[in-house]
Amino acid sequence: MSVLPKSVEKVIDEFSKVPGIGPKSASRIVYHYLRSPNKDATKLSEALKEMDDKVKYCSKCFNVSEKEECDICSSKLRKNDKLCVVEEPLDVVAFENSAVYDGLYFVLGGVISPADGIGAEEIRFRELDSRARELLSKNDKLEIIIATNPSLEGEATANYIQDLFKNFVKEGKIEITRLAMGLPTGADLEYADRLTLKRALEGRRNI
Amino acid sequence: MSVLPKSVEKVIDEFSKVPGIGPKSASRIVYHYLRSPNKDATKLSEALKEMDDKVKYCSKCFNVSEKEECDICSSKLRKNDKLCVVEEPLDVVAFENSAVYDGLYFVLGGVISPADGIGAEEIRFRELDSRARELLSKNDKLEIIIATNPSLEGEATANYIQDLFKNFVKEGKIEITRLAMGLPTGADLEYADRLTLKRALEGRRNI
Repeated sequence: MSVLPKSVEKVIDEFSKVPGIGPKSASRIVYHYLRSPNKDATKLSEALKEMDDKVKYCSKCFNVSEKEECDICSSKLRKNDKLCVVEEPLDVVAFENSAVYDGLYFVLGGVISPADGIGAEEIRFRELDSRARELLSKNDKLEIIIATNPSLEGEATANYIQDLFKNFVKEGKIEITRLAMGLPTGADLEYADRLTLKRALEGRRNI
Repeated sequence: MSVLPKSVEKVIDEFSKVPGIGPKSASRIVYHYLRSPNKDATKLSEALKEMDDKVKYCSKCFNVSEKEECDICSSKLRKNDKLCVVEEPLDVVAFENSAVYDGLYFVLGGVISPADGIGAEEIRFRELDSRARELLSKNDKLEIIIATNPSLEGEATANYIQDLFKNFVKEGKIEITRLAMGLPTGADLEYADRLTLKRALEGRRNI
């Protein structure tokens, strides 16, 4: 005899597919919905359906968007001689929320990770190449800011991008930069790891 | 300028309503769905809708069920002179998965918790009373096993139930029991808290 109704089991199964949500958490989430008096499950259901129907990838930067071209790529206020290359859409959100950048983005959709079986062909390098050429047709110079995560995979991906544009770099058309590495704000030197300290030291500046 | 499409923001908002899921986790979940190639969001959407449409409370035990009377309450194999009173549907799942109990259940739908503004009138005590009377009409004796959590609120709720049936207990019609408290299997005495040790000692048995 199954203890839970089939329709409940199904929702738990669906939630359990999300990385980081185990069957226990999935049950907790589902019971929250079963207990909620405001038909929250239906609201979430409708919101998910709408999202799946409406959201696609921006044809320029591959960020999620409801339009063919996202608000950032189509904005006249953004500088189109700077292209910040990130791993995921959430990285764009992080930049935008801090309001520290006025250029364009490009979302790779992941990083090279041989351990997870993700090779270069699964990352949007070809699209990045086209996008860079397109921007170069509008500008004499283009800065590509590599903002992959400071992980092994992020580094490998950064190296790949550097290699991809090495001819443009030689010709002086593209300049490739990388986000600074060092101590994060509010960090405690005492607890900083070796690599962070090493990079903070390497990147030291005159004040 | 909003960075995320409205339909995405809406799903993140809905997920953020679940206790234990913050905006960051909600974003992570939503990006999992945006990245998933198999229209998982639509699958979850449909599963949620179906759940909200189909699931109701069993009229006898108030566990979630797709039927007017759940499989356990309507089963002829379950002893109807034992009623295990739990807080939540998930507690029933825990009992059923361990296959250690052959009686009936009653789901209170919470515990008395003045700190959260939950008084006795919000818990299904009246329904529990009716259910106990109904079972007493079929049996000479009824055992009510209180299986609320070993928390302050669980204890208060247990006391309330004890008080509710004190006349039946005096008449010898209802026997009220409580789950044993003590060391859990695999526990390390060294790390057991004071209250657990106290209760393990109080509940010690001859071997």
